[in-house]
Amino acid sequence: MRTSGGFTNLAEKVIARCQKLASFSEDAGGTRRTFLSAPMRDCHREISSWMNALGMSVALDAAGNQRGYYSGSGPGVPRIMLGSHLDTVPNAGAYDGVLGVVLAVALVESLNGRRLPFGIEVAGFSEEEGVRFGVPFIGSRALVGRLDSELLSRKDESGVSVRKAIENFGLNPDEIPEASLGDAVLGYVEFHIEQGPVLENRGCPLGVVEAIVGQDRLEFIFSGRANHAGTTPMHLRRDALAAAAEWILAVENVARRIAGLVATVGFIEARPGATNVIAGEARATLDLRHASEDVRAQALDNLIRRAEAIAATRGTSLKWRTLLNQRAVAMDQFLTDQIEQAIRRAGCEPHRMASGAGHDAMVLAEKIPAAMVFLRTPGGISHDPAESVQLEDVEKALDCGHHLLMQLASSAQFLGRTCRA
Amino acid sequence: MRTSGGFTNLAEKVIARCQKLASFSEDAGGTRRTFLSAPMRDCHREISSWMNALGMSVALDAAGNQRGYYSGSGPGVPRIMLGSHLDTVPNAGAYDGVLGVVLAVALVESLNGRRLPFGIEVAGFSEEEGVRFGVPFIGSRALVGRLDSELLSRKDESGVSVRKAIENFGLNPDEIPEASLGDAVLGYVEFHIEQGPVLENRGCPLGVVEAIVGQDRLEFIFSGRANHAGTTPMHLRRDALAAAAEWILAVENVARRIAGLVATVGFIEARPGATNVIAGEARATLDLRHASEDVRAQALDNLIRRAEAIAATRGTSLKWRTLLNQRAVAMDQFLTDQIEQAIRRAGCEPHRMASGAGHDAMVLAEKIPAAMVFLRTPGGISHDPAESVQLEDVEKALDCGHHLLMQLASSAQFLGRTCRA
Repeated sequence: MRTSGGFTNLAEKVIARCQKLASFSEDAGGTRRTFLSAPMRDCHREISSWMNALGMSVALDAAGNQRGYYSGSGPGVPRIMLGSHLDTVPNAGAYDGVLGVVLAVALVESLNGRRLPFGIEVAGFSEEEGVRFGVPFIGSRALVGRLDSELLSRKDESGVSVRKAIENFGLNPDEIPEASLGDAVLGYVEFHIEQGPVLENRGCPLGVVEAIVGQDRLEFIFSGRANHAGTTPMHLRRDALAAAAEWILAVENVARRIAGLVATVGFIEARPGATNVIAGEARATLDLRHASEDVRAQALDNLIRRAEAIAATRGTSLKWRTLLNQRAVAMDQFLTDQIEQAIRRAGCEPHRMASGAGHDAMVLAEKIPAAMVFLRTPGGISHDPAESVQLEDVEKALDCGHHLLMQLASSAQFLGRTCRA
Repeated sequence: MRTSGGFTNLAEKVIARCQKLASFSEDAGGTRRTFLSAPMRDCHREISSWMNALGMSVALDAAGNQRGYYSGSGPGVPRIMLGSHLDTVPNAGAYDGVLGVVLAVALVESLNGRRLPFGIEVAGFSEEEGVRFGVPFIGSRALVGRLDSELLSRKDESGVSVRKAIENFGLNPDEIPEASLGDAVLGYVEFHIEQGPVLENRGCPLGVVEAIVGQDRLEFIFSGRANHAGTTPMHLRRDALAAAAEWILAVENVARRIAGLVATVGFIEARPGATNVIAGEARATLDLRHASEDVRAQALDNLIRRAEAIAATRGTSLKWRTLLNQRAVAMDQFLTDQIEQAIRRAGCEPHRMASGAGHDAMVLAEKIPAAMVFLRTPGGISHDPAESVQLEDVEKALDCGHHLLMQLASSAQFLGRTCRA
């Protein structure tokens, strides 16, 4: 067994491997690897070779998830799952998702062949970003029994369904139930880049995720009256875009005053959208997130009332509709505490935080204890070729992960846990 | 000669004729009649028949303008020009432009064959809206020598140039110079629907236009940083759309405080424009109009400085560029005063106002004294099938126009004027 620290070489290997996987792409000029696309096969082949070299058995489940198994110290021992996703957005960086899988393989390597009182399953999920079918988490949903026939029927832009894509990849969608988590999985731990500026801003290499924020997405439509920009005096206008602008500032002001709340208007459209016509309609979206269900619900209620008040004052009308409502998901407290301890042992001050983005851990948390470790993300930049990680942060992550495995291996409390699945 | 008033039947005829012309359309379901389109020929034929019945000579100039002439009391007398445009926007109403031509013919009819010390030329301009070639005033530009080769080379969406469109209609573009205003035109008077709510709001059937506002159109681009809506805390954002929203409200506030100023942001785009991504860029247009060059210039300067200040405060950057800069055009003071008097004689309180929109009168004013009479526009609605005029307002317009002709016919000052052309 390695002693704590000294993971520089392995960290270099992790980064090189992530960069290698980034070369498996649908696009010539950048990285794009969507659900069961051709380059995903190259990606699987590469990872298989690493896993095989560590004596792991490797399989592809019927949802296209790559699953490598490093057996434990005896037959019939439970397992823990480590991993993340292998798909990417278009014009992606090299680390989002992929890093969590590569780190998991490296943590197995860090054991130097030592067997623990649990097996380690490394999962490379087939789909998390939602790019190809407009729905995220297709891979991890299969593990919790939520890759249902409705989702299987969903089609991509070329009219190919999820089911057909699975068949085209040489897999059998009827075997998806066998991809489910069995009874013997003690928990899931996912390493992922933060994709935000918080850790960098605090000078922390690693963060421990306590919860994945709940999320509301809504569309707001302000309707006024389209009129001639030249012939309609200011006091006789019912300008839908001015109403939307006032509300956008209200959204920002409300979110700034509530700790941990993020609220974003990322899309707007004015209609008819001509330079010389007062907007008769303005459509804007709201993305609202917080780790507390109550805080988010109150903020949403407030923002809807503000929109209504602004619309009323301006003689415009308001409609809104919900596009997404996703509850906050708490990470497992035991695992979170263990991660915090492991981060300390790796020589870092752990920062407890909420994840503002959804992750596979959120899906798996429906069935098993799940937790996440965030790596500092330079500039907060992700979903971009400029996405990066620092070598020393990867080293710390390996150190933390290795400590975590050791802690869990010696924790009677952990080993005695009953899986909820 | 008719006595003042009593134009009810003629007003009814004017409205019926406008509605008849609205049936000559490129579209089956609504009115759309662009530059030298096939239905424009039907329109010309119809108007010719009315003009011929009044003993007018009718011709089509090489820019496709229909020009009818009602001769004066003797050979060699000067002429005045009345008219407006015959083209329409898509999904148009029946009165924008057309009403001014039909009213002009009706004013000739109101003379009952009487000859005045000037001839009356009724012009139906071929193009004012700018729909087919993206450039307005093609018809009236020919009269002031500005239908140049650059404009003639401009192509519509099908790749047909203005020149080719003229040829296709059976006209000879080389004869365009002959369409110019001659020396003997004393002035131009255009009746047009207001296309705004001002007269209706004041309870005035008719308005006299003192000036056509100057106009600036600009594009503003706020650049911030596109970031993940879930992972980027509010205080670490550089949200380009929030910056644009703050500026949109500033535009509105500035315009509300300056009499006669109208300022409109009618187009906005946030990029990347995704619900869950903070806008890295926001593009918005500004349309700014006022009858005073100084007021408009100061307001524009103020709005640019506000945009710069907002961008700076938010850590975003700003670029802006001018799309259009059009000077305000004063209407002829003598004609304006005469119109005001004629409106009074028609029993209405004249409202002096600026035109917020451009009109053919603005183009002709480059060469000859020009003036406009606005008709109250119910609901301020134009460029829409719901566009309308009230019968009694058309009656007042005829009464006013008839008085105006009589006033001018007896004005030594007017008849003694030398044409600027």
